[in-house]
Amino acid sequence: MSAPIDVLEGQLPEGSVVIDPATSEGYRHDSASFCAAGTPLAVVRPTTTEQVQTVLRWASAHRVPVVPQGARTGLSGGANAVDGALMVSMVRMNRVVEIDQVDQVAVVEPGVINADLSRAVADVGLFYPPDPSSWEMSTIGGNLATNAGGLCCVKYGVTADFVRGLEVVLADGEVVRVGRRTAKGVAGYDLTRLMVGSEGTLGIITQATLALRPAPEPALTMAAVFDKTADAMTAVARIMASGLRPSMMEFLDRSSIRAVQAYRDMGLPVDAEALLIAQSDRGSLAAADVAAMGAMCEELGAAEVAVAGDAAESAMLTQARRLVNPAVEELGATLVDDVAVPRARLVDLLAGMDRIAADNDVLVVCPGHIGDGNMHPTVVFDRGDAAAAERAQLAFDAIMRLALELGGTITGEHGVGLLKKTWLRRELGERSYALQRSIKSVFDPQGILNPGKVL
Amino acid sequence: MSAPIDVLEGQLPEGSVVIDPATSEGYRHDSASFCAAGTPLAVVRPTTTEQVQTVLRWASAHRVPVVPQGARTGLSGGANAVDGALMVSMVRMNRVVEIDQVDQVAVVEPGVINADLSRAVADVGLFYPPDPSSWEMSTIGGNLATNAGGLCCVKYGVTADFVRGLEVVLADGEVVRVGRRTAKGVAGYDLTRLMVGSEGTLGIITQATLALRPAPEPALTMAAVFDKTADAMTAVARIMASGLRPSMMEFLDRSSIRAVQAYRDMGLPVDAEALLIAQSDRGSLAAADVAAMGAMCEELGAAEVAVAGDAAESAMLTQARRLVNPAVEELGATLVDDVAVPRARLVDLLAGMDRIAADNDVLVVCPGHIGDGNMHPTVVFDRGDAAAAERAQLAFDAIMRLALELGGTITGEHGVGLLKKTWLRRELGERSYALQRSIKSVFDPQGILNPGKVL
Repeated sequence: MSAPIDVLEGQLPEGSVVIDPATSEGYRHDSASFCAAGTPLAVVRPTTTEQVQTVLRWASAHRVPVVPQGARTGLSGGANAVDGALMVSMVRMNRVVEIDQVDQVAVVEPGVINADLSRAVADVGLFYPPDPSSWEMSTIGGNLATNAGGLCCVKYGVTADFVRGLEVVLADGEVVRVGRRTAKGVAGYDLTRLMVGSEGTLGIITQATLALRPAPEPALTMAAVFDKTADAMTAVARIMASGLRPSMMEFLDRSSIRAVQAYRDMGLPVDAEALLIAQSDRGSLAAADVAAMGAMCEELGAAEVAVAGDAAESAMLTQARRLVNPAVEELGATLVDDVAVPRARLVDLLAGMDRIAADNDVLVVCPGHIGDGNMHPTVVFDRGDAAAAERAQLAFDAIMRLALELGGTITGEHGVGLLKKTWLRRELGERSYALQRSIKSVFDPQGILNPGKVL
Repeated sequence: MSAPIDVLEGQLPEGSVVIDPATSEGYRHDSASFCAAGTPLAVVRPTTTEQVQTVLRWASAHRVPVVPQGARTGLSGGANAVDGALMVSMVRMNRVVEIDQVDQVAVVEPGVINADLSRAVADVGLFYPPDPSSWEMSTIGGNLATNAGGLCCVKYGVTADFVRGLEVVLADGEVVRVGRRTAKGVAGYDLTRLMVGSEGTLGIITQATLALRPAPEPALTMAAVFDKTADAMTAVARIMASGLRPSMMEFLDRSSIRAVQAYRDMGLPVDAEALLIAQSDRGSLAAADVAAMGAMCEELGAAEVAVAGDAAESAMLTQARRLVNPAVEELGATLVDDVAVPRARLVDLLAGMDRIAADNDVLVVCPGHIGDGNMHPTVVFDRGDAAAAERAQLAFDAIMRLALELGGTITGEHGVGLLKKTWLRRELGERSYALQRSIKSVFDPQGILNPGKVL
């Protein structure tokens, strides 16, 4: 029996529901590779919480699967269609409801683009730190669903660290508010954190109260080239232990350096093993901070160190990091991993990656947020070559296995989605996995919310 | 049928189980007022995770209620005995298992005293920020159970912000590990945060992996006296918006000032309405920071401002804050509240408190962590006077009602326990409360873990 989508259409403003397959095709995929996407029933684009309630009441009544999504910049397939699903695109719920300068909170709808929020709060001297690479495109709702990270995390933390409270529509259409507006609060279990990172499997977030901070000073940058990866890792540990509190601490391995240099001639040393790029945004201390970081790198054997004196020089030094993604995409199809390991195990992770690349005859390019041990090993392959694609998949899996062996995690900031679903169980263990499944059942007894994702 | 406690005794090392009522009497209460405590079956003091497993397997098999506890410094009755319960005192599991300087994490057992951990990590140049007033006595396990706060929260956050992963023994005796050692990770639902603040109702924490930071420089202090509370609140908002990042931002109302001055003559102005005490620990910036805070206070009408030039002067200025608790205890029996409201509503909270004190003919002394809106209005009464005790209870409830009306929470950092159990449901709403009950059932289907607490 097909679900009476016309009933839902009748309950929503005209144009909210799109059944035309040509249009809904555009809502089937996020940005992950190797993830299946089914054929959706329709796409709905609500503009209010009440409309989301209507959608979920209808979906519950007819047991129709529901896939919430934002800008579909995700890298784990979490927003991909499943067969017969109603795709719930939240992009039209894109109001910044309130920016409160005294309490330093913003209240936003989930469809607000991260960059739009960041600019709106910057206009009043405030700062919303979470900055995933996709920040110019991705929505706050998507950031919440995956607990997105970014470059800032090394100093400021991840999306979850900035979430005070949420309005959530449950599977049966009822609305709950979890968390609070205040900075502190311990009234009951932390359902806010449970929702953040749950990838649309526990409810649909319709509003978020986010913590802001006073805007920091513009950052200054230091870059250091190392002939040996191990020396660079020692420098990272030294800088992180120093109390200098870098606001960015990024790493490019040799393949990343070469990819960027091939993409644009920046005079990068293509025989170096490692490039570290670090920032400080501590105002009047920043110049001394980056000088001190540079001195540490030199002392630990850096072949070359550049310390920016101003914002323009800083921008030049960070450009190499920003060009990694486009540069690597020039090399072929990519499978982006997202493992994190304790900093003390980074040397082992990077050495293991070389082994994995050799064993599987693939190129693995490895940039990453080295300050918090979260790396993005990217397997590059020829999409037209089925054998190469298979080897890429094997290498990708081997990287996750290695991360777990090193006491790390299969995903630092991209989420589980479809891509890492089979790996989640290994990371969690059977009982912890079973607890998570039971929690899922509490929130979604019929299993209609983003079925087949995460768990 | 009474439970075969001798069976449990036989499974544990000699001396682990104490049945003697004279001894178990000492384990019946935490430090809360007005909270019932039942008669326990026995006290058990395990020294290993395996022993905790043995205890919970036995308790599950015989459906014996279990009340985990640490140092019993809690202020909500969360650690109080219930009739027939096995009191599980975790104080003998007090090893600091590991301090990792590269990853800046500590692995500890729950019975470690907060101050012992803080000193151990300070010895290697690291810093564990959470600093509840009880830090010299309270255990990390108790801090985790209540998600304890403290003076540091205004800059560094609460206990939960420093928890990476936990080892937990579930109600049936199985062990799970939740969370991770890495700084970032989004593999599955956040069960770590679910456990933190759950007050022993979801499992017994047997090990915690805690994040540390590089040790900050010693803090400098500023104190400002205001004739008008509203001016002090404006100063708080201005300082918090300034980007100076105070590492402490405390408040004493007139009654607190008077109590301290009566307790020890510090020359405090007993007619002032407010005393603000703020710190900066930003190293070479600290002196300029406290000077700038002082200048803001002067500009906003402070009657008197003192800025410390060194650690000794700083200690003098913070002494008033540290003396509030002993000074207030001299005044009579106390009922300590723990509400938090948005900073913009603090003026309303303080004005309302005066009304509530007058309406109920009680003294309300109100110190608090003003920087994050978390206040500790303390109702002082004569324990021997039943009518006064009743009025105190009414005033206490009125304060929570007011906090909720102002968009706040009934508990910022002390937890729900028994004391605020009837209020939790009001704060959460019916559906959110029901979700929490269902989560409780997932972890504890027989309801043996700290029954009757929180929910």
